[in-house]
Order: sequence, then structure tokens, then C-alpha cells
Amino acid sequence: MHHAHADTMRACIDDCLACYRECVSTAMDHCLAMGGAHVEKRHMTLMMACAEICRTSAHFMLLDTPHHRHTCAECAEICEECVRDCERLGGMDACVEACRRCAESCRKMASN
Amino acid sequence: MHHAHADTMRACIDDCLACYRECVSTAMDHCLAMGGAHVEKRHMTLMMACAEICRTSAHFMLLDTPHHRHTCAECAEICEECVRDCERLGGMDACVEACRRCAESCRKMASN
Amino acid sequence: MHHAHADTMRACIDDCLACYRECVSTAMDHCLAMGGAHVEKRHMTLMMACAEICRTSAHFMLLDTPHHRHTCAECAEICEECVRDCERLGGMDACVEACRRCAESCRKMASN
Amino acid sequence: MHHAHADTMRACIDDCLACYRECVSTAMDHCLAMGGAHVEKRHMTLMMACAEICRTSAHFMLLDTPHHRHTCAECAEICEECVRDCERLGGMDACVEACRRCAESCRKMASN
Repeated sequence: MHHAHADTMRACIDDCLACYRECVSTAMDHCLAMGGAHVEKRHMTLMMACAEICRTSAHFMLLDTPHHRHTCAECAEICEECVRDCERLGGMDACVEACRRCAESCRKMASN
Repeated sequence: MHHAHADTMRACIDDCLACYRECVSTAMDHCLAMGGAHVEKRHMTLMMACAEICRTSAHFMLLDTPHHRHTCAECAEICEECVRDCERLGGMDACVEACRRCAESCRKMASN
Repeated sequence: MHHAHADTMRACIDDCLACYRECVSTAMDHCLAMGGAHVEKRHMTLMMACAEICRTSAHFMLLDTPHHRHTCAECAEICEECVRDCERLGGMDACVEACRRCAESCRKMASN
Repeated sequence: MHHAHADTMRACIDDCLACYRECVSTAMDHCLAMGGAHVEKRHMTLMMACAEICRTSAHFMLLDTPHHRHTCAECAEICEECVRDCERLGGMDACVEACRRCAESCRKMASN
């Protein structure tokens, strides 16, 4: 593996795991405490799906399988949807930030 | 591995994965639809923790690591707590049944 | 959800979890015991990636997120590659069978 | 949650995810490349079990379930066994370091 590529991948694993952490803890702490629109199926399902695909994309990069490109592409898609849904609800800036950063990182890996 | 032991383990993996399925789908479908006490942190956290430990205990048995005894013991504990909390809320019979069966299976594996 | 769709999804979750089980236990039991080509990076990475995407696709269907179509499409792809690699090595009929069945099920879900 | 406790937990999640990364990538990269004793069932099973319990303990802390004490205790146990097995084989210093740090962090969480 070229060094530049290894560095980009390492940064992407960082961003995926950071986003996974943010989504799980925000959903289970902030959202359940807020109630209302925050615990509607639409939002909670998206948060948990985002956490899971981040976890899986990180795992694929750690396994060093070429299929990580496809999980990263899907991860970027879901993260971007999560950004929009968290902005719609408001007050979830840390989660928006983590999803946005992860989406950018994953876009890069997907097109590598 | 003795045949009897392999059969008990295979049954326990079945029960863990069945309980994992029931907990995830009940939490994300039934509980989010019901709202109220069903989406309180206490209950949702327990449902998601139960799903995760079932997934992990199944994985440990598939890896065939001797540490599966400890994850199975913990799994039994959490499943029993989940039985009680689902009975408290009512209307979650399939989940209660899956947790109870998984707890029994895991108790057996933990003491093997 | 229409009943026919729910049945197809339930069958696909069954097939994903069965394939996940087969891939993990075959890799950690049969492949490590055989050694040689069975423990080469190419094969082991594919087996572990297949296990992980099956686990994730099942999880996405349990979460009932519409993104399950994309994870199912990727799952079918990896399962088909795993079929070819297990046939190349030989003596892994149960794993070939589980991957083939899961690929078919996931193709159906992906195009639903 | 008291601030000191939240900080200790955050550090433990960091250490668990760092150890998970190190175990997966070392097993799938270094160990499969080395072959011999590195791909024996005893060692590979332990590496994969260590990765899984680290992932699960991190998840339990993110869910903020009190059961994290038990998964952290088990995680410390497996990490310590992994330290010994990596030292036995030699040349796996980064993995030894990550496992040792995670074991210490998890011991602290388990007794909190």
C-alpha cells in the first residue's frame, strides 16, 4: 500500500469510528431524553443505520478488503442523509459535524 | 468437540440469533410506534444491550473461543432483565419468549 | 409492509444469518485447521468480509431502513465472490451452499 | 454522570476501539502474512475474540448500560491473555501495547 493511501485510509477509519460513537451515544442519550420528533421511527432508524454502516465500513478497511469502496460509498450516502435529518431537528451539532466529516472521508475512499 | 456439546452449542447460537432479531425489530418497530414508556431510556437501552450481547455471544461460539462461557453468562443475565422489563410494559410476548429461551440456553452453555 | 414483502425479507434475514454463521465457523475451524491456501490473505479476508456484510445486511433489514437494498446488493456481490473462491479451494460445500442461497435472497431484496 | 466518570468512560471507549483496530488489522495483515504459529487456531481465535469483545465493550459504554462493567471485566481478561500470546510469538509490539492499555482501562471501568 502506498503511504499516502494508507494515511487516507487511517483517517477514514478514524472518521467512521468517531461518527459511529456520536450516532449511538446521541441516539441513546440525547434523542431518548428529548422524546417527540427525536424518537420517531424515521429519525431513530436513520441514526442506528448510520452507526451500523460506519462500524462496518471501518471494519472493511481494517480487513483491507477492496470491497471497502462500496461500503464507504454507502456510508457517505447515509451520513449525508443523517446530516440533513439532524439539521431538521436542530440541537445536534456534534452529530452533524461527525456525519459530515465521515461523509467526506468516505467519498474520498470510495473514489480511490 | 463431543457431539452432544456441539448440538447444545448449535442450539444456543440459534437462540442467541433469534433473540437478537426479536430485540432489534421489536425495539425499532413496536417500541418506537408505541412511544411513551416504550421509548424511555431505561427500556430502549436494555433492548439494544440485549440485542448486542446476543450477537456477541453467538459470535464467540462461532469463533469457538472458551470465553463464550463468560459472554453466555452475561447474556443470560441481560435476557432475564429484558424478560422482566418487557413483562412490565406488556404486549411484547414474542420478545419475552425469545429472551427467556435464550437465557435458558446461555445458562446451560455458561455452566458447561 | 405487504405480507409477501415481509415474508421475503424474513427469508433474506434467515439466509444472511445462516451465511454469516457458516463463513465465521468455516474460516475459524476448517480453514485454520487446513492451513496452506486456506489461510492465505486473499481467502481469509474474503471469508471475514462475507461474514461481516451478511451480519450488517441482516441488521439493516431488522432496523427496517430502506438502505437495506444497497447493503443487500453488496452482500450478493461478496457472497458470489466467496462461492467462487471456496469452489477454487474445494471441500467447502456447506459454505458454498450458504453463500449461494444468501446471494440469491439478497439479489431479490436489492431489486424490490 | 459525574464529569470524572464521563472522562474515564470516554478514555475507555478510546482504548477499546484502538485495541479493536489493532487486533483486526494485525490478525488480517501481519499474522496472515507471517503464517506458521501466527495462523494457528489458538492465536487467531484469541485475536478475533479480543477484537469482538473490545467492539462490544465500547458499544455497551456508548449505550450507557450499567452492564458495561461486566463486558469491561471480560474485555480486560481477554486483552491480558492476548498480551501474553502476542509476547509468546514476538514482533507484535503495537498489538501488545494496545491490549495492555485497554486491559488497564477496562479494569478501572469494571470496578467503578
